[in-house]
Amino acid sequence: MAPRRKKIYEGKAKILYEGTEPGTLIQYFKDDATAFNAQKKAVIEGKGVLNNRLSEYFMQGLGNIGVPTHFIRRINMREQLIRQVEIIPLEVIVRNFAAGSLSKRLGMEEGTQLPRPIVEYSFKNDELGDPMVSEEYIIAFGWASQQDMDDIVSLALRVNDFLSGVFYGVGIKLVDFKIEIGRIWDGDFMRLVVADEISPDSCRLWDTKTGQKLDKDVFRRDLGNLTDAYTEVARRLGVMPAAAPVKPTLIN
Amino acid sequence: MAPRRKKIYEGKAKILYEGTEPGTLIQYFKDDATAFNAQKKAVIEGKGVLNNRLSEYFMQGLGNIGVPTHFIRRINMREQLIRQVEIIPLEVIVRNFAAGSLSKRLGMEEGTQLPRPIVEYSFKNDELGDPMVSEEYIIAFGWASQQDMDDIVSLALRVNDFLSGVFYGVGIKLVDFKIEIGRIWDGDFMRLVVADEISPDSCRLWDTKTGQKLDKDVFRRDLGNLTDAYTEVARRLGVMPAAAPVKPTLIN
Repeated sequence: MAPRRKKIYEGKAKILYEGTEPGTLIQYFKDDATAFNAQKKAVIEGKGVLNNRLSEYFMQGLGNIGVPTHFIRRINMREQLIRQVEIIPLEVIVRNFAAGSLSKRLGMEEGTQLPRPIVEYSFKNDELGDPMVSEEYIIAFGWASQQDMDDIVSLALRVNDFLSGVFYGVGIKLVDFKIEIGRIWDGDFMRLVVADEISPDSCRLWDTKTGQKLDKDVFRRDLGNLTDAYTEVARRLGVMPAAAPVKPTLIN
Repeated sequence: MAPRRKKIYEGKAKILYEGTEPGTLIQYFKDDATAFNAQKKAVIEGKGVLNNRLSEYFMQGLGNIGVPTHFIRRINMREQLIRQVEIIPLEVIVRNFAAGSLSKRLGMEEGTQLPRPIVEYSFKNDELGDPMVSEEYIIAFGWASQQDMDDIVSLALRVNDFLSGVFYGVGIKLVDFKIEIGRIWDGDFMRLVVADEISPDSCRLWDTKTGQKLDKDVFRRDLGNLTDAYTEVARRLGVMPAAAPVKPTLIN
């Protein structure tokens, strides 16, 4: 699709365009999938459409319970209008079960339940491969203040409680997820909001009964068709991407 | 069913029997439905079976995210083994949308979204009709300490975030709910746990799209068959009561 508007930023899976009014941006979801800091790449037809719809669904749900997000409204199959935020250069990761890099670093079997949810941070920097950083680093380097970090932990744990519930209700285990946090300013006043996206690209989702992976690990580890996995998540949640042949779960 | 064990307490919808080991009780779910402080009564076949299973489901989900509850395990269709707790004599009510007594007291239309979740308390006392009380009353009369109340609010809001997520995922709006909190002692150490039950008896649940009520208001307000409503909740969550003809939602 030819961008109709000024491109602000292009990332691995999304493009940001100038918004329709001041303080807004248009977030465009691409079909590109990358893993291992973009060493593995592919175009997965339909992924962008699914993630646009799913991120809308999760952000709206968070908004409903009073967790502020950047989401304003979905525009079309691949685009959503969002608040322009000043992104804090961190990936905020919440883990309920051991998986991925935590399992590797600690030699802990994937799927091991953690004693409590663990919040951790990566410094968002592709050249450095998004290195893990501690709160000490974050505050020392001025990426966020102590007050910000306290608020970020609270937000992240609320998101975890809510999303754990959403997935529990449809037989999926929320193993871990990543969010990004942005600042919105109103004069001297600042508030933190959940930004970027929430989708199977940014969560680890395992079927509760079978353990089947329904997230980006399907692509990372060549476990099958990624679109099928994401479509299954959408189907269970009754989320129907526009023009995607998804059978609704709910009978109303 | 003839009680095989010593009856400890009989309430309107449940009976507590002596447990199989010290510090435990058996919670038996009756089919009795009452409303308006037991001025309206009925026996609703199958309600106890559904609530036993649903309360197990919600309590287990809360346990998974680290919210402590009294639940140990389900024993059979109508009974579950629970930790014996010292019940704090309060109904802890969390409201997301106006309904029921709040709507009546404030003249606020049912369904109006509240500016934020509101936690309120009733003093558990049938003779008095469970009167609403403030935190001031609770602390002044020694029903709970200020520290307890801070912990109770935190617990109640975590339960709200989680349950809001569970129901959001299956197209149901969590309008409000009631929980009870118990104390468990280990020597001088005390912790608070979610006790009693979580079920459509203790929640207001509206279908997100149609607004159809799927909770005890169906009985309170004569809106149809209560078992059908509870069965629909169970069906959407993929919760199959033993021996109840519920079609699972999830395909695994």
